[in-house]
Amino acid sequence: MTIYRAPEKEFLFLLEHICNYSDIAQQPGFEDASLEMVAELLPEAAKFFEQEIAPSNHPSDQQGSHVENGTVTVPDVINALHPQLVESGWLTLASKTQYGGSGFPNLVGLTVNEMLQSSNVAYSLLSLLTQGVIHALDLYGSDEQKQTYLGNLVTGQWSGTMNLTEGNAGSDLGNVKTKAVRNGDHYLISGQKIYITWGDQELSENIIHLVLARTPDAPEGTKGISMFIVPKYLLDADGNPGQRNDVQTVSTEHKLGIHASPTCVMQYGDNGGAVGYLVGEENKGLMYMFAMMNQARLAVGHQGVAVAERAYQQALGYAKDRVQGSVDGKPAAIIAHPDVKRMLLTMRALTEASRALSFYAIACQDRGQQTLLDVTTPLVKAWCTEVAMESTSLGVQVHGGMGFVEETGAAQHLRDCRIFPIYEGTNGIQALDFIGRKCLRDGGSGVQQLLAEMQQLAGDCSQWPQLQTALSQCEDALAWVLSNPKASPAVAFDFMMLYASTLAGCLMATSHRKAKAVCDEHSGDSFYTRKTTTCAFYLANLLPRSHTYFTGVTASAELGGDELWLAE
Amino acid sequence: MTIYRAPEKEFLFLLEHICNYSDIAQQPGFEDASLEMVAELLPEAAKFFEQEIAPSNHPSDQQGSHVENGTVTVPDVINALHPQLVESGWLTLASKTQYGGSGFPNLVGLTVNEMLQSSNVAYSLLSLLTQGVIHALDLYGSDEQKQTYLGNLVTGQWSGTMNLTEGNAGSDLGNVKTKAVRNGDHYLISGQKIYITWGDQELSENIIHLVLARTPDAPEGTKGISMFIVPKYLLDADGNPGQRNDVQTVSTEHKLGIHASPTCVMQYGDNGGAVGYLVGEENKGLMYMFAMMNQARLAVGHQGVAVAERAYQQALGYAKDRVQGSVDGKPAAIIAHPDVKRMLLTMRALTEASRALSFYAIACQDRGQQTLLDVTTPLVKAWCTEVAMESTSLGVQVHGGMGFVEETGAAQHLRDCRIFPIYEGTNGIQALDFIGRKCLRDGGSGVQQLLAEMQQLAGDCSQWPQLQTALSQCEDALAWVLSNPKASPAVAFDFMMLYASTLAGCLMATSHRKAKAVCDEHSGDSFYTRKTTTCAFYLANLLPRSHTYFTGVTASAELGGDELWLAE
Repeated sequence: MTIYRAPEKEFLFLLEHICNYSDIAQQPGFEDASLEMVAELLPEAAKFFEQEIAPSNHPSDQQGSHVENGTVTVPDVINALHPQLVESGWLTLASKTQYGGSGFPNLVGLTVNEMLQSSNVAYSLLSLLTQGVIHALDLYGSDEQKQTYLGNLVTGQWSGTMNLTEGNAGSDLGNVKTKAVRNGDHYLISGQKIYITWGDQELSENIIHLVLARTPDAPEGTKGISMFIVPKYLLDADGNPGQRNDVQTVSTEHKLGIHASPTCVMQYGDNGGAVGYLVGEENKGLMYMFAMMNQARLAVGHQGVAVAERAYQQALGYAKDRVQGSVDGKPAAIIAHPDVKRMLLTMRALTEASRALSFYAIACQDRGQQTLLDVTTPLVKAWCTEVAMESTSLGVQVHGGMGFVEETGAAQHLRDCRIFPIYEGTNGIQALDFIGRKCLRDGGSGVQQLLAEMQQLAGDCSQWPQLQTALSQCEDALAWVLSNPKASPAVAFDFMMLYASTLAGCLMATSHRKAKAVCDEHSGDSFYTRKTTTCAFYLANLLPRSHTYFTGVTASAELGGDELWLAE
Repeated sequence: MTIYRAPEKEFLFLLEHICNYSDIAQQPGFEDASLEMVAELLPEAAKFFEQEIAPSNHPSDQQGSHVENGTVTVPDVINALHPQLVESGWLTLASKTQYGGSGFPNLVGLTVNEMLQSSNVAYSLLSLLTQGVIHALDLYGSDEQKQTYLGNLVTGQWSGTMNLTEGNAGSDLGNVKTKAVRNGDHYLISGQKIYITWGDQELSENIIHLVLARTPDAPEGTKGISMFIVPKYLLDADGNPGQRNDVQTVSTEHKLGIHASPTCVMQYGDNGGAVGYLVGEENKGLMYMFAMMNQARLAVGHQGVAVAERAYQQALGYAKDRVQGSVDGKPAAIIAHPDVKRMLLTMRALTEASRALSFYAIACQDRGQQTLLDVTTPLVKAWCTEVAMESTSLGVQVHGGMGFVEETGAAQHLRDCRIFPIYEGTNGIQALDFIGRKCLRDGGSGVQQLLAEMQQLAGDCSQWPQLQTALSQCEDALAWVLSNPKASPAVAFDFMMLYASTLAGCLMATSHRKAKAVCDEHSGDSFYTRKTTTCAFYLANLLPRSHTYFTGVTASAELGGDELWLAE
């Protein structure tokens, strides 16, 4: 049930062949982060996550997190593991050295994050949110705020949360009602926030909440939202956690998945107001939150990759063990059945393609290619999570009846995964971001730049007619969207899926080329043969989905007016 | 949460325009089952299921069924409802009059079954299994057995179960090890069966288990399996339940969904042997079980339709209520957002298309078109359940964060649905059935007959180029399969999906034509406008998936040999 082996070879392959990692490691500051160094470090990290964290996944799901009398209790295994994870230092790899991190490129942090996410995705959210707070404070906090909070957040002694959503403010944060009233050097915060991931727990010495709230004279809508630091414990004169702030956990949600992660309703200011410190300037909170959110969107995309990887490994293990039916007259493990192979290969191809996409985006970040990072962020968030749903569902299917029984853990991956297309901006919101902010706003020039990259990554397409077709469809769809901007919200989802699956196809074509070259040179390692098989399957069998997405964009479907929808 | 309205107009539309129901009602024995009669009867049934059964869905999921000291307890709401459902007589509509049924065509039974399945699919399984036992005994039981059991099974006083699976005998029933030893006029049965749906409960006065077992001298494999009637309570001289038989419930599974349905591990013969009565002849059990199973496969396909319908209605209700974001500067319910409409329309189109497919197959059954019924049965089982997974997942997505919270009930539909592609023969098994037994075995003549039907249903395709393309792809794929029979297991799934989605497309083209004609005549009822919108969306936006399935068949993908799969 807990089979997990970190895909170290895959990481190194992507770093070398998809990310041109050596170029990145030559940037100043990364002197100690050569590919060789990374290759030495990965097995150590792998050992830790495989042996210590991965076995916690199923028991922590079964026990779950709960709130009682305002105190959140988390699964026993997590209580036991948390000090080990903090002490291991694996989470600080990509943090800046001035805050106690190791200062490695984000790509290196990504490999370790994937291991953590595969090992226990619900638990990994605690670190994800903390990373987000670090990112926001690093960008927009004052020097004093950085000095006060970042050190302990980076080491993991303290954790962080994002407080955006309210009952009537979800996708539309313009409705935020939480109040912030200035009171000397701080503000008093009051209001209720919902869906606060890891909103409370007793694992960390302190929890630093970033809270969106509105000052009394703020403009309406999204332009009147400010961001505040609200620590669970106010700091004493020495900077240590002291008095409890005025923030309480009201309840936790009973969810489909990620049971180990407490999703809290947080009440601020019931006893006079929670002490909060303004980040940056008033009314710029949403912009700050987006910096944090973009980072989180990339991370959520990779959650899809990580959970799909775990589901794949588990399904593969089951398929090798489970004997059922016969081949050539002899009882055979179900992996011998072609339809089971088809399911496993689909899972593997989607997972490797989505991992390539995510690595590609983070490489853009490490290289400072801002436009490419901006256009690919919604693709990573949405596509990697959509295909993860498909993979984890196939993982259940490979298990047959056993997949539906919670004991095996196959269903947990599907349950856990189901939130990824929803949180940090639903995939519908990602589609609008891609077609609107990232395409129409600049007249398509960012997407044109991406297209040029895609052509280059694809290389000589003569071997992959489906890729040639998909690339033409991307071009034609872009032209269609630019001439039909008003129709964009209706076709946004298919437009995004078309670009994401084609970009992934280009990366799979690159991977195929590189892996084939290794095979041709020395065919000793089956990793490279397997890679060519997976890439070819993606390009021949899965990429043709582009036809559906392309038609979705250009068919100008009639979605029906209110007279139809409201009559029902 | 419990919004459910039976789609009565939809039922009548399909009966009239897809099933040519009037022809069926003219068959002898159906004199009292005219379309007018059905139209009068549906609102009565609808009232019962909407008001009495539908509200039980969420609470019965939350409470679940459990076993304690060998006794199965079911959710309180089901205890309260069961006598009402039995007394209502709605389940006996399509049963034969000689056993106390109403003798209506199967199509009429289907409408009521859908209402029950939409209302509470986990509970509906109790009736589904009972119908299966009725079907098997009606076909293969002796006159005495029919007289002894069928009356009480038809009224619902007694229930039935199917006992096939064992730990090592799932998809491959040749491994069945349960023993049956002759002992005078009966047999003594011993062994363990798993995954027995509604294997035990206290709702019914008696439970009639149909058990597959092997006599001591039986041939190995599937040719040595016999079928036995094993009542929970042996009948006394008056035919009433008397002494307890030697069968016990060991445990129930902790499952992803259908929590209200107890999935039991059953132990037979621990105290000397359970008394069982042979059905038909020895060693023909598997053939008999298939008669029951084919019926059950059609019913499982329709479970997909029914749960997707419920999920759609719930998502639509939520989308009309939930205000978020704005349109033209005013706060708007999310249904005003085109991407939400796209999701809802996808759900509606897939659900209506799969319902049309299911009704079409049952019409073939009522008309005695055995070949068409045989080829369409795996399509109904597999395709209707695959698209139901997609619809119920979209239903969660429409709810945003609330979809992930169990309170709303949106996630329950997805959880419940996940077993449909697995039980009664996984969808992979359906694909092998379609391409093997239903296509290659007769040299493709059955599928050719289906293709001719499809062409006729499609009519003039000039309006639907995608349908024209899909039909050509079906023809070409058939030719490819007939010339590459050895490759068939690897391409079976895509071949099946291609045929199912195209047949559904043909039925949607028929529906569009018929609905348009009504609109052109008198456009008062928005049902018909909505129908044309849904059909057009299916044909233009969803049917292009045929490209992927067609490529899946003809691309001859390399799935990798053991040297790759087993090295990992």
